[in-house]
Amino acid sequence: MNDIFLKACRGEPVPYTPVWIMRQAGRYLKQYQKIRKRVDFLTLCKTPELAAQVTIQPIDALGVDAAILFSDILIPAAAMGMELKFSEKKGPVFAKPIRDRASIDKLLIPQPEESLNFVLETIRILRSELSGKVPLIGFSGAPFTMATYMIEGGTSKNFLHTKKMIFQNPDLYKSLMDKVAKTITKYLKAQIDAGAQAIQLFDTWAGVLSPMDYREFALPYVKRVIDGIKSQIPNPKSQNNCVPIIYFVGECSGLLEEIKSCNADVIGIDWRINIDEAIKRLGNNFSVQGNLDPCALFLSRDKIEKRVKELLLRAVFARGHIFNLGHGILPETPEANAIAMVEAVHKYGKKQ
Amino acid sequence: MNDIFLKACRGEPVPYTPVWIMRQAGRYLKQYQKIRKRVDFLTLCKTPELAAQVTIQPIDALGVDAAILFSDILIPAAAMGMELKFSEKKGPVFAKPIRDRASIDKLLIPQPEESLNFVLETIRILRSELSGKVPLIGFSGAPFTMATYMIEGGTSKNFLHTKKMIFQNPDLYKSLMDKVAKTITKYLKAQIDAGAQAIQLFDTWAGVLSPMDYREFALPYVKRVIDGIKSQIPNPKSQNNCVPIIYFVGECSGLLEEIKSCNADVIGIDWRINIDEAIKRLGNNFSVQGNLDPCALFLSRDKIEKRVKELLLRAVFARGHIFNLGHGILPETPEANAIAMVEAVHKYGKKQ
Repeated sequence: MNDIFLKACRGEPVPYTPVWIMRQAGRYLKQYQKIRKRVDFLTLCKTPELAAQVTIQPIDALGVDAAILFSDILIPAAAMGMELKFSEKKGPVFAKPIRDRASIDKLLIPQPEESLNFVLETIRILRSELSGKVPLIGFSGAPFTMATYMIEGGTSKNFLHTKKMIFQNPDLYKSLMDKVAKTITKYLKAQIDAGAQAIQLFDTWAGVLSPMDYREFALPYVKRVIDGIKSQIPNPKSQNNCVPIIYFVGECSGLLEEIKSCNADVIGIDWRINIDEAIKRLGNNFSVQGNLDPCALFLSRDKIEKRVKELLLRAVFARGHIFNLGHGILPETPEANAIAMVEAVHKYGKKQ
Repeated sequence: MNDIFLKACRGEPVPYTPVWIMRQAGRYLKQYQKIRKRVDFLTLCKTPELAAQVTIQPIDALGVDAAILFSDILIPAAAMGMELKFSEKKGPVFAKPIRDRASIDKLLIPQPEESLNFVLETIRILRSELSGKVPLIGFSGAPFTMATYMIEGGTSKNFLHTKKMIFQNPDLYKSLMDKVAKTITKYLKAQIDAGAQAIQLFDTWAGVLSPMDYREFALPYVKRVIDGIKSQIPNPKSQNNCVPIIYFVGECSGLLEEIKSCNADVIGIDWRINIDEAIKRLGNNFSVQGNLDPCALFLSRDKIEKRVKELLLRAVFARGHIFNLGHGILPETPEANAIAMVEAVHKYGKKQ
């Protein structure tokens, strides 16, 4: 079994730097596009056999060291009772965004084994099909990021509705976040029970908050989720039971001193900061994941190699380093360049 | 004359912390909306009497300590020969974006006294109408940010066309930047000659670059502009001749160590970093400007006061501090809250 990814998450010695790619099962892969021609995105997420199939595609095509469940960060929000649609142009859309007490009161805290069973079934199929080839990562949106979509109704530029709720009605916001955090905790615990060997929390939009707002309005809920999961694992320190939790924060560079106080095992960082600076500021309690600019995959092969080498060198003092992009891979990315990146990590990431 | 703003830029003692607001002449002001009902945005920019009128509106309505020329960061790009339109939904649009050598070759380096004379005329009117009440800030987009619009054709999510050019054809990119930097230098020098008493370079999008790409593809052109302007001012150290240059960078927090090497007098920072951390990292060669989250103006009056107080306290060790938002004021902002912010700065920013 290739457990190098899990070892790097825990800060144990590894023969080489492991690598996977955020959104590695996606439109930049021809095989993925073939399947998407037949089914829409949400149907794909909800059909365990197909979701498992696309999850595995990049393992074979790219040779990455981890698989990540094919799903969407907003799937748990949909299970809370919100009608979720995906538009090719706008991305995820909630037609009825959350703006008042009544809509929060209506939200469910779903039983994952019921309304989210298709995800758990996907995980079970994957564990059987991967049969130890590489570890399987489960995931969810982090509470703040999920809440922004629920409040805004989709992606946003200024996150004005979210911040208005935070600033003008913090109690309303907090009661929403209570439900969101509970939902995510249960959902991720169920993913672990179904077989997920690591968990990633995506806090893509946390970086739109000032550090002091992040500390009050995003971080406490991340902690609640992480601590909630860890308290339910019999012996989190023993190797067999340790399911590493990766906390990815977009535009993290102003927030690292706050992020440090969470109990994640790995901090995923975007590309807008030098990884050595992030490592220094985070200290030695975390492994780090990242942080190549997704657009760097439009460089020529030899320049991709050069960037990979430089990034590996900058990360050499990390407790553990999992190579990744600083954000999801772009649909326009040439598949060959993604392969070149993975090969370069394996070639130049060998430990002495 | 109220020259407190200029003094704070230079790091001289001031009786209180000066304040102005990025995009302070804008849609959140009822008087501005009245004028915009009659003329479109670009006509307003190009009509000196009207541009001067809206520039002055917030001075009276808000009591800020500086006026900023009403214009757009892309005006010099239009003078280079690119057709610029403003759409209510999409913002600025260049119908024919720059993607190849031929379109770069066609770009002019405009004589400001000719094609940009309406800006210079606005400045001349303003200096006469303001008659020393508050100093007048001139501005331009910084080279990288202006180039992103020229290459993308408008605002962008991933800046893929820009980064593709940078990564795949750096020579092409650099020849574009040569022309852009020359244009901006001449343009800002002409603004100073016409009477601008300080200059702000807006590098709104520089933060989408990794620190190493920023160092190679954005910073050198900023330096060229700043040094180009300063070399043309007879004695930049003497107080009368010193036209402070403010360099504002959006999402600056990963870039401060690079930014430090530019010769600006003031660094403008966004809200995604604590201002005390920015001050510490920038050192004592700069004054700082910022950095309240624009959305904080949706707080109640007493909470705005509290945030202002806290921000002033965090900035107490700066060489000089000019209070501002971390980005342009949002059109939806209640005018009364902008006033409350300015009043709070003047009240709590008094020096002992």
